[in-house]
Amino acid sequence: MANASTISSSDILNTQPLDSSVINDLANGILNQNRRSLAQAITLIESTREDHRKSADELIKIIMTKRKSSLRIGLSGSPGVGKSTFIESFGMLLIKSGFRVAVLAVDPSSRETGGSILGDKTRMERLTREENAYIRPSPNKMRLGGVEAHTRESILLCEAAGYDVILIETVGVGQSEIAVEEITDLFCLLIAPAAGDELQGVKRGITEIADLIIINKADGKLLPIASKTTSDYTGALRLIRKKRNTPPNFPKALMISALTGNGLETVWANIQKFSKWQVSNNIRTLKRNLQALSWFKEEVAERASKQLEKTFNLEPLKKRLENDVFSGKKSPIEGIEQFVEAMKDKLKM
Amino acid sequence: MANASTISSSDILNTQPLDSSVINDLANGILNQNRRSLAQAITLIESTREDHRKSADELIKIIMTKRKSSLRIGLSGSPGVGKSTFIESFGMLLIKSGFRVAVLAVDPSSRETGGSILGDKTRMERLTREENAYIRPSPNKMRLGGVEAHTRESILLCEAAGYDVILIETVGVGQSEIAVEEITDLFCLLIAPAAGDELQGVKRGITEIADLIIINKADGKLLPIASKTTSDYTGALRLIRKKRNTPPNFPKALMISALTGNGLETVWANIQKFSKWQVSNNIRTLKRNLQALSWFKEEVAERASKQLEKTFNLEPLKKRLENDVFSGKKSPIEGIEQFVEAMKDKLKM
Repeated sequence: MANASTISSSDILNTQPLDSSVINDLANGILNQNRRSLAQAITLIESTREDHRKSADELIKIIMTKRKSSLRIGLSGSPGVGKSTFIESFGMLLIKSGFRVAVLAVDPSSRETGGSILGDKTRMERLTREENAYIRPSPNKMRLGGVEAHTRESILLCEAAGYDVILIETVGVGQSEIAVEEITDLFCLLIAPAAGDELQGVKRGITEIADLIIINKADGKLLPIASKTTSDYTGALRLIRKKRNTPPNFPKALMISALTGNGLETVWANIQKFSKWQVSNNIRTLKRNLQALSWFKEEVAERASKQLEKTFNLEPLKKRLENDVFSGKKSPIEGIEQFVEAMKDKLKM
Repeated sequence: MANASTISSSDILNTQPLDSSVINDLANGILNQNRRSLAQAITLIESTREDHRKSADELIKIIMTKRKSSLRIGLSGSPGVGKSTFIESFGMLLIKSGFRVAVLAVDPSSRETGGSILGDKTRMERLTREENAYIRPSPNKMRLGGVEAHTRESILLCEAAGYDVILIETVGVGQSEIAVEEITDLFCLLIAPAAGDELQGVKRGITEIADLIIINKADGKLLPIASKTTSDYTGALRLIRKKRNTPPNFPKALMISALTGNGLETVWANIQKFSKWQVSNNIRTLKRNLQALSWFKEEVAERASKQLEKTFNLEPLKKRLENDVFSGKKSPIEGIEQFVEAMKDKLKM
């Protein structure tokens, strides 16, 4: 296969009709590790059109019975800490060790201008060229709450396509991290060397969800301060409350240079240790089960209410109420109440 | 009134029955600028119990007809940049200028341990003691998506209680920022002095939503680097695409020292300029209308589906499906489909 890893084909969305045979072809392509099929499938699940959603469900159901299991690694860090360089170096290390690597990006901050982190691909030149790597930039228009739904399905698709390690990257400190932590096996926080006061704040909050704190840029003149940062975190981590269901000695602070590659083997060794512990203590299964449950819970309400609006033809009323709320004729609460009342009336019939 | 600003009373939740007269008392207390009533009301809207939700709706409907308008300022910044010090100094400046100030905190990262940012109050000692200030730490267990719903209502309650300026603080770079930006009039990003490469990354993304970039710690030996950072940002901001509906010359980078208070008057002058432009160009109204609309849209689906489950007694089926999904007997998609099918059957009756 040619270098199709960078194709984010939208052809699939124009296929008419998008019937079972097309979906089966797509599923087979994915299971045969065809990156183009994978790219098309992810485009399909990201579509918001109702018929696409139906096809996406069908596809997910097929591949769910056949997929293998992968190691899902969440990766976060503020802009500028070197995430792209880390993914490039770490990804190449994994590929040299014989693994297939997928990178999914969750970038909620790009919503306003609709920009993607495609630009980062130029910083992952080697990885982009590898046949055993698949890099998927974030969708153009990310909605709040949309992080998990799509990313969850993208993970399943990547697993079906035989990727052993799936890196799910996100930017910053906030809700996207929590969302990503919830759908991964292990969560890494990449930070830049920093000292003193700055540190205090960073320790609070984010360390609650990180399993591995990776201090990057331990090279050149930043080496001494990276060293200091690492030992500061090591000390601090001893004091914080551990996350439930994590192996002894985690969370852990490790120092690396994504630029030179120093320390990356140690990071991978620790990730494997973490992973093995999770599997042998049945935590992996528990985590996946909990993830399935929250997937169900989060989707079911939305699907149910859509169905309801369709059955009772409530869309015109909703549109009218939206106009009233926008124009200030009704407060949001009044609008909601009126809609629920109308629904109740219909239900009584 | 005594120093009640730090009371986060949960007494209200134990009041039985929580009838209209109690709600009216609460509304009157808020309108009479009683901080204890305000604290109780926010506790009420944060409750997830169904009867509390009903009372909260009732309360919001009463105060919405009577509230004044305030200036809503979003404030974000990574941990360690000095947000608490900024709020303390800036809040005191506003109070000395005759304004009443409310501070609401949105801290999604504290979910895991259920911690709040109460600790920060020790860094806002002066503000906490002011009668014209109200500081509300973030709720203990924040759920994804819960940021806006509650914060939106808390803002309305603070407005009803006569606060002129409402600061909505959040941590980090990510979805919580987008959520906060959507419910405020103006969004400030507080950053620490930094140079070179680090800057590049920070500029991307977050500047898309910031109206004011405030470089803190422009004091002591950090002054030269703060100066450099400010001019770097000023240069960079000229090149980025402007947010829609913002006044000329914004976003803008300003340098301050929250510690010494230097530059805070300039920040306030710029915020006022921004605000006046918004009002006189009808952008304020447009923004508020859009906010009302998204409030309606986000809440209506959830309320409708809850009502549906109740009417058709679908909770037992849902519970059963949840168990099947958790135990792996069914995939989430299968569970969702079965639920929607059951619902459709009921609707046909």
